[in-house]
Amino acid sequence: MTAQAPQQSRRGGTASRRAERASAPLIQERYITREIPLYELISEEGVELLHEQSMTILEEIGIEFRDEPALKLWREAGADVRDQRVRIPRELLLEKLALTPAEYTQHARNPDRNVVIGGRNTVFAPVYGSPFVRGFDNERRYGTLEDLRNFIKLTYMTPVLHHSGGVICEPVDVPVPKRHLEIVYSHIKFSDKPFMGMVTTPERAADTVKLAGILFGETFMDSHTVLTSVVNCNSPMVWDATMLGSLACYARANQAVLVTPFIMAGAMAPASTAGAIAQLNAEVVAGIAYAQLVRPGAPMVYGNFVTTVSMQSGAPMVGTPEPAMMIYVTAQLARKYKLPLRTGGMLNGSKIADAQAAYESMATMLPTLYAGANFVLHSAGWLEAGLAAGYGKFMMDADQIAMLQRFSGNLDLSEEARAMEAIREVGPGGHYLGCAHTQRNFKTAFYTSQLADNNSYEQWEAEGGRDLNVRATEKAKQVLARYEAPPLDPALDEALLAFIAKRKAELPNTVT
Amino acid sequence: MTAQAPQQSRRGGTASRRAERASAPLIQERYITREIPLYELISEEGVELLHEQSMTILEEIGIEFRDEPALKLWREAGADVRDQRVRIPRELLLEKLALTPAEYTQHARNPDRNVVIGGRNTVFAPVYGSPFVRGFDNERRYGTLEDLRNFIKLTYMTPVLHHSGGVICEPVDVPVPKRHLEIVYSHIKFSDKPFMGMVTTPERAADTVKLAGILFGETFMDSHTVLTSVVNCNSPMVWDATMLGSLACYARANQAVLVTPFIMAGAMAPASTAGAIAQLNAEVVAGIAYAQLVRPGAPMVYGNFVTTVSMQSGAPMVGTPEPAMMIYVTAQLARKYKLPLRTGGMLNGSKIADAQAAYESMATMLPTLYAGANFVLHSAGWLEAGLAAGYGKFMMDADQIAMLQRFSGNLDLSEEARAMEAIREVGPGGHYLGCAHTQRNFKTAFYTSQLADNNSYEQWEAEGGRDLNVRATEKAKQVLARYEAPPLDPALDEALLAFIAKRKAELPNTVT
Repeated sequence: MTAQAPQQSRRGGTASRRAERASAPLIQERYITREIPLYELISEEGVELLHEQSMTILEEIGIEFRDEPALKLWREAGADVRDQRVRIPRELLLEKLALTPAEYTQHARNPDRNVVIGGRNTVFAPVYGSPFVRGFDNERRYGTLEDLRNFIKLTYMTPVLHHSGGVICEPVDVPVPKRHLEIVYSHIKFSDKPFMGMVTTPERAADTVKLAGILFGETFMDSHTVLTSVVNCNSPMVWDATMLGSLACYARANQAVLVTPFIMAGAMAPASTAGAIAQLNAEVVAGIAYAQLVRPGAPMVYGNFVTTVSMQSGAPMVGTPEPAMMIYVTAQLARKYKLPLRTGGMLNGSKIADAQAAYESMATMLPTLYAGANFVLHSAGWLEAGLAAGYGKFMMDADQIAMLQRFSGNLDLSEEARAMEAIREVGPGGHYLGCAHTQRNFKTAFYTSQLADNNSYEQWEAEGGRDLNVRATEKAKQVLARYEAPPLDPALDEALLAFIAKRKAELPNTVT
Repeated sequence: MTAQAPQQSRRGGTASRRAERASAPLIQERYITREIPLYELISEEGVELLHEQSMTILEEIGIEFRDEPALKLWREAGADVRDQRVRIPRELLLEKLALTPAEYTQHARNPDRNVVIGGRNTVFAPVYGSPFVRGFDNERRYGTLEDLRNFIKLTYMTPVLHHSGGVICEPVDVPVPKRHLEIVYSHIKFSDKPFMGMVTTPERAADTVKLAGILFGETFMDSHTVLTSVVNCNSPMVWDATMLGSLACYARANQAVLVTPFIMAGAMAPASTAGAIAQLNAEVVAGIAYAQLVRPGAPMVYGNFVTTVSMQSGAPMVGTPEPAMMIYVTAQLARKYKLPLRTGGMLNGSKIADAQAAYESMATMLPTLYAGANFVLHSAGWLEAGLAAGYGKFMMDADQIAMLQRFSGNLDLSEEARAMEAIREVGPGGHYLGCAHTQRNFKTAFYTSQLADNNSYEQWEAEGGRDLNVRATEKAKQVLARYEAPPLDPALDEALLAFIAKRKAELPNTVT
């Protein structure tokens, strides 16, 4: 495509204008700094009530840390440790929690892509962990390394996504023990946005830290955060050795983690919204407090991923009222603790990018924004309760995020925006299409989607009567065709590849 | 269907249980009384700034009332009237506006269906005014009287829709001069929920008032509101004789009207969100103040319908950031004036009930709820920027409204909901599926959609791999098959039909 562009522009006309637009420099949007108010769903008293309940859970029932080093640290800190059960006095817990920074900068290899996670900021990252892909012909199949790289490239090319994410889809064609190396390298090589580390074993977390050390320098990395990874609690109330090992690995290296219970309320938490919140809050704060035992001051994010369970079928449900409430209330709790917040996303249970997918995605994402989430995983591409990453879904979600970004700037009340001059000029019965104010403002006045079809029925039909998923998948192809890799210092690239080659030689091809 | 039900139940098994569910009495939901906070997008100072601008517009530029009786009333009230231009001093305007009740009850022929419009209440009504229909085979065609009646029946059968609406789709098979009679009669006959009056000419408004008078009694009607109709301002800043005539007809009869500028910002209002709000606010308050000149104390609703115009194609756009801002800020203005608010809906520009339709619908409807709308027209069925009413879209929108209804109850923080007993009982590493608290709560704990598919991919595929629109359209057929008309006093029915026959004989078959 790039090679062809000069040829096209010589031809002139529509094709040339298209080529011009296609080669326009990509202006990365700054992460969202919200100018809109937070939506506080419940009262401060309600927040206190749930906080108190979480404290009682941790003091009286306790939480399991199924990891000897973790138990040792808790014992040394003064918690009541019996077998793997840790009971944490609230004073100890809150003291440790308070060591966590309220916000932190995650550095990218291109400093213009650094993101500040916390405060009034919201950073969007793509879907994470999907074994399946909805491909360019809407086919459903296992993800491959090429798919992962495509999604990394699409994220790089999408100005309103600020973070490259992690395991966007599983590269099933790469052996599990070596997969983490390919994933991390792909983020470094094909994007210059910040990215996530691997967590499937502590050793893979360590490999991620090594690769990041090569890229950023180990000294820089010890005082600067360059990774934000995600670990999940085994709800109810169990932190297992794999997750704790990865969490400790990152905390020791001063790297950030989204400490995230993955809750299916009704199965892994009580069959009630408030009860589920109280439990997940206990799980999060225990996890973050543990990270502070490992390294005081390590940046950690209050995470949650909330679904409810259908009591008829056992299936997880999202986009329903209760997860929205959980998003809002956990945000209020995170603010109480002065912790950055990860929640929400474009979640849905639909198998295809149809109306169900979109209703549920928006019914999750609007609360995510209004609640004040700081880091949003699964912002683009999510389908099938996370089992599939869709190219079409990715593009349509990104379009919606662009609108949220615009909305988050709040209403412009400047004199120019109030347009009194135009109202005087046009007067009753006129129209604004040609007036001076419109001439000055029409290009930026209103968000115009490149994916939504607002044409007449007849024109839409004449253009093939395509639904949004078809148009969006087509757009994904077009964007990928324009992709050019950001430059990477060849010496660094060589060093990264050398480390990967060495590790690959050491690692088996199958999990033993 | 009803006739077949006893046969089915004799068979036993699944079919019998289905029939049992099908014949379960329909429990109408009470209209929403919001227990959630309002989302106040801008500051009080911002609201004041826009209010001041609207007052300046009405005082200095003025607004046109293209209707001699209206000009006469404004002259008598002390406004500055030159030709058709009326300049209204703010003291006069605010004095008249203050006569409007902050809330009112719209009575239904079944008193259990009465709705209170205003305050913390939200009342949902279906789509209005679509010439086209997306039918049971997803075909697009002109609407018919049968379609209108189907939508009235579906609305009647849908517990979370509280209001029967008006011209849900245009019954194109009925001659225009007689259409209003068939529409009003259909609402009275096939539903017992409150409904809207006709506004296409003042004479048709008068016929509506007559029909309502037969149904409710003229004396009752003079002191009770039984109609909520809708009139549109010809933006910018023109109220025409047709709309003013209908508005005056209803106001005189003590009947409510949604006084609604229909704004395509960039064409009929400035190409800026704040400017468009200032203008539409001036249009609304002038219209409502006029209604108070006709009859002080007549119930009126602060209405708006807001879209932006694509500066590339001239097409209207909804579900984008600017209409959401307009919804929030006009809500703040309506509250300042202590007026009930009509805004929002499930608006979208998509030709089919695909992901675009759903994203845009939710991106409009969530702000509608959070802003505190009291009356929501176009809550179910809207497609194609209002040009088509869809059966599938109707059902899927209703499902979403059920979820909003649930959300609007806010978080239950009772002891039972906090579920401490369950958390103690289950403990770390357990699961909640069988515990006592779950047994008590599983039926009502979490909203379970009857339309969303949350099954496995394999099960979904085995069941035909149907998208939401296909499933929802199927559901519409099933619900209609169960419909039974609410009883209507035969004497009243006869009187209504006699009036309609008389009027039909007087009216031509074509507009002359």
